[in-house]
Amino acid sequence: MKIIVLGGDGFCGWPTALHLSALGHEVTIVDNFVRRRTDEELGAGSLTPIRPLGERLEAWSATGHPAIGFAEIDVAEDYDALEALFRSIRPDTIVHFAEQRAAPYSMKSPRHKRYTVDNNVNATHAVLCAMVEACPGAHLVHLGTMGVYGYGKTKGMPIPEGYIDATLRSGGATADADILYPVDPGSIYHMTKTLDQLLFLFYAKNDGLAITDLHQGIVWGTATPQTLLDERLVNRFDYDGDYGTVLNRFLCQAAIGHPLTVHGTGGQTRAFIHIRDTVRCIEAAAATPPEWGSRVRIVNQMTETHRVRDLARLVSDLSGVPVEFRDNPRKEAPENDLVVVNDTLLHLGLRPTRLSDGLLTEVVDVARRHADRIDQSRIVSTSRWVRPPEDA
Amino acid sequence: MKIIVLGGDGFCGWPTALHLSALGHEVTIVDNFVRRRTDEELGAGSLTPIRPLGERLEAWSATGHPAIGFAEIDVAEDYDALEALFRSIRPDTIVHFAEQRAAPYSMKSPRHKRYTVDNNVNATHAVLCAMVEACPGAHLVHLGTMGVYGYGKTKGMPIPEGYIDATLRSGGATADADILYPVDPGSIYHMTKTLDQLLFLFYAKNDGLAITDLHQGIVWGTATPQTLLDERLVNRFDYDGDYGTVLNRFLCQAAIGHPLTVHGTGGQTRAFIHIRDTVRCIEAAAATPPEWGSRVRIVNQMTETHRVRDLARLVSDLSGVPVEFRDNPRKEAPENDLVVVNDTLLHLGLRPTRLSDGLLTEVVDVARRHADRIDQSRIVSTSRWVRPPEDA
Repeated sequence: MKIIVLGGDGFCGWPTALHLSALGHEVTIVDNFVRRRTDEELGAGSLTPIRPLGERLEAWSATGHPAIGFAEIDVAEDYDALEALFRSIRPDTIVHFAEQRAAPYSMKSPRHKRYTVDNNVNATHAVLCAMVEACPGAHLVHLGTMGVYGYGKTKGMPIPEGYIDATLRSGGATADADILYPVDPGSIYHMTKTLDQLLFLFYAKNDGLAITDLHQGIVWGTATPQTLLDERLVNRFDYDGDYGTVLNRFLCQAAIGHPLTVHGTGGQTRAFIHIRDTVRCIEAAAATPPEWGSRVRIVNQMTETHRVRDLARLVSDLSGVPVEFRDNPRKEAPENDLVVVNDTLLHLGLRPTRLSDGLLTEVVDVARRHADRIDQSRIVSTSRWVRPPEDA
Repeated sequence: MKIIVLGGDGFCGWPTALHLSALGHEVTIVDNFVRRRTDEELGAGSLTPIRPLGERLEAWSATGHPAIGFAEIDVAEDYDALEALFRSIRPDTIVHFAEQRAAPYSMKSPRHKRYTVDNNVNATHAVLCAMVEACPGAHLVHLGTMGVYGYGKTKGMPIPEGYIDATLRSGGATADADILYPVDPGSIYHMTKTLDQLLFLFYAKNDGLAITDLHQGIVWGTATPQTLLDERLVNRFDYDGDYGTVLNRFLCQAAIGHPLTVHGTGGQTRAFIHIRDTVRCIEAAAATPPEWGSRVRIVNQMTETHRVRDLARLVSDLSGVPVEFRDNPRKEAPENDLVVVNDTLLHLGLRPTRLSDGLLTEVVDVARRHADRIDQSRIVSTSRWVRPPEDA
């Protein structure tokens, strides 16, 4: 297949591009390097020393795999270049990671809120517009988030895959319908993924585009078999309060003896997936496009759920580093249950990588190896969902 | 009250600003004049000779009413100016009309699609961001559309006001919930209003903003008591295939003897409201803000429903001009029923202006008076929802 990976220089995009290339697909990466510039803005780079994309691509070719193509395009801004690329490549599949993906970053200030909405909505919309014009038969595989559902809206019921069976009542009449799960996003970032869903709904209906939306859990880990082939292929590892995801942050804190910082009671239950499974899920989704003209296929891309404080205890037991409870900067329920349906991926053959498989230790080892690169002042989250009263 | 009217130079915004000023409120208009520039782009201006805003505002002061303020700001782009204005005025109410509001225009090309999404989402989001920073206690009154619901989704059941009573089922368990009506927008324009809804959902929940979303039907008429006070206060009248709404287009066609062009079978049932009622609804909404921290209040702002072909027959009988059926450029069901709940506005005291009240004749008279300004080549819609196969 000919596959374009939008955002292919990022944390999920880079290992996905390598994985798809290793499988024999013709891969082209599109990126505008904004994530690298955000490192400079925040003064907190990747823990691992990621190489410039040119060096990454050379290293990949040197492993004997076919070359991966590259086009520097701002997907949200450079529409004509995007459409021209789609016309020239005629992709079978477009994998779309080209969005700002950190909830704390999206809440930092009006500028960060507005950037996140502007970039994510316009990027997704540009992709859809350009598909209609240039490659209406291609399959769009988009990274959504489990966070579109909100937690606890259906109190202990399993979270279905995108749609929920409903009986609607109005004026004494009723109707049964399979509807999009009523969303309840917890941050501006998560909200943008609920907006994406409605863009997909419209373009699938009006233009017949084939779309898969993968509602991903929190990714942990950093390495895949491909990124381990050469040190120049190393993937990002974010440990800072904005981009670092909770389990990776605990593992990084453990590696340097920093207390494991839990927000609130740690009673939040979250869905997780290892980066090795992320790339396999994309592979499986790309291999099984929904029929042209059918409704958007929505898949829950996660393999297990855990309470945050249980994860902290697990990592504390592993490392001997104590757990420390902090005020929760987010506006959310202190405790929630979470049961998630993930049948589609299991049916497609995914064999989940579990926390117990020893990969926790691998991540701690990666963090230890690069411990001298850690800026301790960047570990704790400084974003707040609502300004404290004294600051108002 | 201190009221800011965003988009106050437009078709709904201008008579709303005058109406609120006439009631004694301190009104400030914000506009970037994009709608006047779109006239130039389309080569189809207002049928009525609208005056530059400066002249409009002078004429208003000359009637003896208090002056209306003005700030030229692009709400979607000039965030700092918007926030500064909110800080300096400290409005009680912000009325938000600052969006691209024509479905056919939104479907013309990738550029028009992208402009509509970019402008509408970023405008609404800028308003919400700036409110959080500058005036978190103000009340936002936003013009939504009946088109968020889609037609026929709940087959003959009354369309409730924004929320619908539902029983959700997953994994053998059930939950009752009052959920946002599952949306099914029929154009890019209508889709942007479904995106607005989710922005409101988030900001009401996270920041406690007080928000009223008015899902308006198709507006007809052009004059209000205030716009009739001086010819320099005249309101827009759009008759072209992009911005002209269906009933106003029939009345304009009748005035010049052009066949009444019905799309498809004319079996589409739509909700309508006269511009005189629009401004009264805004008045009523502004006078009754929802409690701070409550959920978004959603109101259906329409007074009656009609089938398009019935309207055409009514105007044909009135004028002797024949009806002509054309291919429908939209992708929609050829026939639909529509029953709409509009209890909130009736409870707030609105006494609807009906089609039978002789205002049809008033509109035909307006059109006849300016018949020499009509460009017949602009009457028929050229936008298509899906490209015809031979063009693909």
